[in-house]
Amino acid sequence: MSRFQPVALHHASRLINHGPTVLVTSAAGGRRNLMAAAWSMPVEFSPPRIAVVIDKHTFTHELVLASGHFGICIPGVALADLVYAVGSCSGRDGDKFQRHGLQPLAGPVLGLPLIEDGCSAWLECRRIAEPHTEQAYDTCFAEVVAAAADPHIFADGRWRVADDNRPLHSLHHLGAGLFVQGGDPVQAGRA
Amino acid sequence: MSRFQPVALHHASRLINHGPTVLVTSAAGGRRNLMAAAWSMPVEFSPPRIAVVIDKHTFTHELVLASGHFGICIPGVALADLVYAVGSCSGRDGDKFQRHGLQPLAGPVLGLPLIEDGCSAWLECRRIAEPHTEQAYDTCFAEVVAAAADPHIFADGRWRVADDNRPLHSLHHLGAGLFVQGGDPVQAGRA
Repeated sequence: MSRFQPVALHHASRLINHGPTVLVTSAAGGRRNLMAAAWSMPVEFSPPRIAVVIDKHTFTHELVLASGHFGICIPGVALADLVYAVGSCSGRDGDKFQRHGLQPLAGPVLGLPLIEDGCSAWLECRRIAEPHTEQAYDTCFAEVVAAAADPHIFADGRWRVADDNRPLHSLHHLGAGLFVQGGDPVQAGRA
Repeated sequence: MSRFQPVALHHASRLINHGPTVLVTSAAGGRRNLMAAAWSMPVEFSPPRIAVVIDKHTFTHELVLASGHFGICIPGVALADLVYAVGSCSGRDGDKFQRHGLQPLAGPVLGLPLIEDGCSAWLECRRIAEPHTEQAYDTCFAEVVAAAADPHIFADGRWRVADDNRPLHSLHHLGAGLFVQGGDPVQAGRA
């Protein structure tokens, strides 16, 4: 039973607006995979479009090309060890979901494997074919076709980051397994 | 007198690895500008290349096209009000450096206006012409040609985020002027 609630598509880009490290999921031809990606960003709110760097030599890239789809899951700090582990090995060497005891659910539109436990949100994305940027910069563009979030930390199109949802705070990778936690809200006024 | 130290180019992409909101600076033909960008990411470590979303209708885009260059400055939390303010108005309506009392230094390679006070690091970037992605996704690719950081928070190619450098912790924009602070380091082991 999912605790997540659907996110309106025009709010979907906000889910990665703050630059969190994410998990990228993929599946094609009975195989599936999971990798960590520190490098992603929205490129547009409406339609909701994003860019993510997926090395063209990875198993994930192979599955994304085959299916035309990928999922983005946003891990909370409680998943730091998992994020680092799945970012440090290849899915060609064995199913990472099974190795880490993960039981993904199937996304509502594209059927992608998605993780909710320990995550704040997920997005199902349809690849926009841009062979040049994929080859030259490993940069894949995609349109978000479904999104959902844990209403404890994202509801009505807004993040609510507070002490009572600390395990869901975002991870931001500095390098070599060291992250900073996206906590401590700062509300700007006008300078 | 700058307190910054040069960052080796093969470490430059690490400066934005964690998804901070950044300031984009630009100059051409005697005019200059400053905007906030929540959407940027590295795309390669070596050579150091990045992508940043710059709306094609902005004054910054006009200056970047004219000069072929832009700067990236990484503001600390103490600059939250400034970041939000320069992200909410256009440089076509007046020089934002002057309005906010900012005295930028000139970058060593490209001469770009760069801000150090309140920032943890900066990068001088040379645009890689990709007219299609600039038009379709407002996404500009660039190569970093010089970088420097405050050694109090980034030295020897590594971030050192701690209580004693809190004003320099990164900002990550959630939306509508609300940021989370990139503090509280989390070191992952292997799951």
